[in-house]
Amino acid sequence: MGDGVTAARRSPGRPRRADAERRILDAAIDEYLERGASGFTIDGVARRAGVGKSTVYLRWPDRDTLLVDSVLARSRAIEDVDTGSLRGDLVALSVNMLRFLLDPVGFATLRLTVEAVASGSTREVTTGVADRHRRAAGLVLARAAERGEPVNPGTQARVVECLYGAITMKALAHGLETDATSEATIVAACVELVDLLLPLLLEHVRPPPDPAR
Amino acid sequence: MGDGVTAARRSPGRPRRADAERRILDAAIDEYLERGASGFTIDGVARRAGVGKSTVYLRWPDRDTLLVDSVLARSRAIEDVDTGSLRGDLVALSVNMLRFLLDPVGFATLRLTVEAVASGSTREVTTGVADRHRRAAGLVLARAAERGEPVNPGTQARVVECLYGAITMKALAHGLETDATSEATIVAACVELVDLLLPLLLEHVRPPPDPAR
Repeated sequence: MGDGVTAARRSPGRPRRADAERRILDAAIDEYLERGASGFTIDGVARRAGVGKSTVYLRWPDRDTLLVDSVLARSRAIEDVDTGSLRGDLVALSVNMLRFLLDPVGFATLRLTVEAVASGSTREVTTGVADRHRRAAGLVLARAAERGEPVNPGTQARVVECLYGAITMKALAHGLETDATSEATIVAACVELVDLLLPLLLEHVRPPPDPAR
Repeated sequence: MGDGVTAARRSPGRPRRADAERRILDAAIDEYLERGASGFTIDGVARRAGVGKSTVYLRWPDRDTLLVDSVLARSRAIEDVDTGSLRGDLVALSVNMLRFLLDPVGFATLRLTVEAVASGSTREVTTGVADRHRRAAGLVLARAAERGEPVNPGTQARVVECLYGAITMKALAHGLETDATSEATIVAACVELVDLLLPLLLEHVRPPPDPAR
């Protein structure tokens, strides 16, 4: 549901172009996983997808835009979260994000970010993905407030930073051992994390005075 | 204080070997920053340090051990934290870690971890540094408990994961713009983060029941 194939079927007027786009996005991911950022070229992607370079450039102005779009195309599930409670939604978001990072394609976005920072190059490559995760959390919190859950707007951004940061630490600690990391382990780790942080998101929790001050 | 030069002076019996070690560690950092993980070799480090390869192998069995040792040698300040209060210590630890990650040498450890995960290779390279950060947090918390601050042992590991994770997110968002990131900005960001998470570390804060359950 909501994947590229369905999207292609929904564009009856131009199936061939949609099909080419899909092939290009798939080729881009494979090319990146095989060659890394430094070996990633529009040329290589076009060859792998079996299309002309100009077909790629019709849609993507440069390699970075193509790379981030291809990652996003494989991570549609990020926003598909609506369980009816803030806790449930946060657990679902966290599970999505941890699964995303334990997958080579998702992990590639983290690697791209780190490489971009290290080389001082443009970070537009990955802000697209980071923004999407942040927007998904924003939606979940806005919906909780609409339902009347006592969400504290003052702590939202920092709590989301802690949640996503802790998930990134978990992904770095586990590595890409997706087989060893069972679904139950992923869910349990996320539930634990959300239950730790949830009080900080709710209005009625105030930090106690620091005993040492 | 506590840096490699002082350590070298403290070994009066073998100043030459200590000096060579220092040169090798410095050369290793420079080599990594210039060539990245894939171009990093014992050969290159030895050449840059002006020593024979065998001198390097006398002390370091392989390139990964050398690389992590060289990063550690530049990050002595990690554990130098004792302000007298848990809040003060956590702020100091966080400031140390954020500064560490905003510096090319410190950021290199994050990059190494990500590269090791991506390539499925050994992660001993970076667990040394991660362990050191975790141990520093453990010491701070143990000292707080000794002083009688009501530290909750049940939440420690997860709160530290959130703290270090959020700091990593900040470093990725800021990039290595150390000049643009003033000391005041770093400290303010860390104070805000510690004040958010501190209640979760203290015994008397219990999560409230989830309103949606």
